[in-house]
Amino acid sequence: MAAGATVNPVINVAAICGSLRKASYHRGLLRAAMEISKESMNGIKIEYIDISALPMLNTDLEGADGSFPPVIEAFRQTIREADSFIFASPEYNYSVTAPLKNAIDWASRPPNCWGDKAAAIISTGGGFGGGRSQYHLRQIGVYLDLHFINKPEFFLKAFEPPAKFDSHGNLIDPEAKEKLKQVLASLYAFTLRLKGKC
Amino acid sequence: MAAGATVNPVINVAAICGSLRKASYHRGLLRAAMEISKESMNGIKIEYIDISALPMLNTDLEGADGSFPPVIEAFRQTIREADSFIFASPEYNYSVTAPLKNAIDWASRPPNCWGDKAAAIISTGGGFGGGRSQYHLRQIGVYLDLHFINKPEFFLKAFEPPAKFDSHGNLIDPEAKEKLKQVLASLYAFTLRLKGKC
Amino acid sequence: MAAGATVNPVINVAAICGSLRKASYHRGLLRAAMEISKESMNGIKIEYIDISALPMLNTDLEGADGSFPPVIEAFRQTIREADSFIFASPEYNYSVTAPLKNAIDWASRPPNCWGDKAAAIISTGGGFGGGRSQYHLRQIGVYLDLHFINKPEFFLKAFEPPAKFDSHGNLIDPEAKEKLKQVLASLYAFTLRLKGKC
Amino acid sequence: MAAGATVNPVINVAAICGSLRKASYHRGLLRAAMEISKESMNGIKIEYIDISALPMLNTDLEGADGSFPPVIEAFRQTIREADSFIFASPEYNYSVTAPLKNAIDWASRPPNCWGDKAAAIISTGGGFGGGRSQYHLRQIGVYLDLHFINKPEFFLKAFEPPAKFDSHGNLIDPEAKEKLKQVLASLYAFTLRLKGKC
Repeated sequence: MAAGATVNPVINVAAICGSLRKASYHRGLLRAAMEISKESMNGIKIEYIDISALPMLNTDLEGADGSFPPVIEAFRQTIREADSFIFASPEYNYSVTAPLKNAIDWASRPPNCWGDKAAAIISTGGGFGGGRSQYHLRQIGVYLDLHFINKPEFFLKAFEPPAKFDSHGNLIDPEAKEKLKQVLASLYAFTLRLKGKC
Repeated sequence: MAAGATVNPVINVAAICGSLRKASYHRGLLRAAMEISKESMNGIKIEYIDISALPMLNTDLEGADGSFPPVIEAFRQTIREADSFIFASPEYNYSVTAPLKNAIDWASRPPNCWGDKAAAIISTGGGFGGGRSQYHLRQIGVYLDLHFINKPEFFLKAFEPPAKFDSHGNLIDPEAKEKLKQVLASLYAFTLRLKGKC
Repeated sequence: MAAGATVNPVINVAAICGSLRKASYHRGLLRAAMEISKESMNGIKIEYIDISALPMLNTDLEGADGSFPPVIEAFRQTIREADSFIFASPEYNYSVTAPLKNAIDWASRPPNCWGDKAAAIISTGGGFGGGRSQYHLRQIGVYLDLHFINKPEFFLKAFEPPAKFDSHGNLIDPEAKEKLKQVLASLYAFTLRLKGKC
Repeated sequence: MAAGATVNPVINVAAICGSLRKASYHRGLLRAAMEISKESMNGIKIEYIDISALPMLNTDLEGADGSFPPVIEAFRQTIREADSFIFASPEYNYSVTAPLKNAIDWASRPPNCWGDKAAAIISTGGGFGGGRSQYHLRQIGVYLDLHFINKPEFFLKAFEPPAKFDSHGNLIDPEAKEKLKQVLASLYAFTLRLKGKC
């Protein structure tokens, strides 16, 4: 880091969406997070990681030498390279979605790609705004050795007025955007703190 | 059991395995459950439901009329027809597996196919013998409106002596078989009780 | 309900409040439940069980002969006599309260007083309306061998308009009262079903 | 501690036991942790915090000015002064104990005394070695804003051979002591890392 102009350290955040739907609100949340970081948080680079092509986890697909199919290996590489993670985690039947769990499980196969990194979770939905999925994900993270930020938690009540998303699934609610920005700021600070760069 | 009229009511139990591995211990548990029921529990018919062909849940695959792809519809039909369920639920990263969650989520799409039926969970593995997955599955079951038996719980420590499985993944431990039989008896009784036939 | 013999079976429900505060909203919920049952549900008798005098659980207080201090024994007796339970469970720090857990633990000491009975949970509060406490309580109930109703769940957002409680902690919101009545009806039906009287 | 430059930073760890029993194994675990730290970990000072005198939480006991009864205020002060925490958490009915939850709740009353500090959990018992209580405690910690170490987790199967405790509740198993030392080392490192002193 150069003298003079105080440049923020840059962290690379991998963004993973638990829904495969095209118009998914959770994708909308991640798009909003990417926009916010580009516009006003020059220390955060968020990369969207597409998990839709991953086959259902079956360890019979692994080679006897511990190798993985190319699509899995590429995914694992993106996880290994990230400094921290943001999960957009819908709540299906009071827990995380299968596509999200599947992606998590593939990248956890030895050697674990998630270990000792910071993470944040954002959710939206009816009821608790997706909240039940977050506590299951936090328990999953204990084994993965993820360190989740505690504050702020982000649960967006998708169906309460005012409108939170437009018809394309884009986040349009200013209050939610501000909260999302706080999540990113918290994740940024915690990532650096865990790296000893704060 | 006496001759003549006093025949046990028969219940149809759908058996679902959360692992897709061929040599899965959880398939072994379900094979053992099927053998036990055939040999000595004439009121229980267990049908193994293969979930390996189900595509990853994506509601974009549903028709505008609420229809499902044929493979999904066939699966939903088996769930609707069952009287109760037995889940062989491995613990991956302290929660349920993606294939199991995926199957559950497909059959929960409206109209929910699981509602108001009895269920049991069996697990094996290291550590807690798969136990952490069971409590997540129980929370999932609240929304599905499943009624799980409470006793006995079945957590088999797969790697403690004596050997629990042979090299083909068949359950060979007599104590575990006896415990498994108790699970089936409890599921049988609870299924009938909920149906008002006890 | 017809004249003559067809009287609803009566069930005795023990009502337990997780808050010791005088003006507790959760007491208010239980008072409302008692009023509703008196006014319009002649099959349910709800008895409020005061847990405020129970000492903090310490098994050193038990006699060598398995006896309990009189205040504990009296509490255990009320639990044994109840047909089913309604827990008013506040969420403190994302879990159940200490007084509630304390009461539960005392009545679970061998021989367990809760076993094989039906139960319902009602909560109010900010955020998820007390919801996180309910899933912890459900897990606790697995060991107690309680059978919780799944539907409807009752989470009352205490601080969203319109006002839910008056200044004395009395429930005044008609919609919440109607929901509470549905909980009681569900608990009534499930209690009878488990007893084989439906 | 030797002269010269290389002095380990010292952290003050508050140790809290969820059981009030005199012969509690969990107290034994904490005694062992204190011995280990004195003998071989000069950067850790562990103070045992007695929670047995705390009244059951009832916010009616708080002053209108936000003050607390003296015994509570003294407890809160010890929590505020600690750098990090070690919880000896028994599993009662698949969750944390009432005395532990009570202590946690008192110190969480505004202003929260736990915030942004590191913590570890150790448990012993039958079944999962107390494990179910740990995941409830971790969820509680999200609201408290605690940062738990993920590795190693400490679940001691109290009743499996060889003997783990003597008749006074003292930990005597060398393997368990070594694991406990690893927990302390992990807590030490994580505490410093969060403080930016690693």
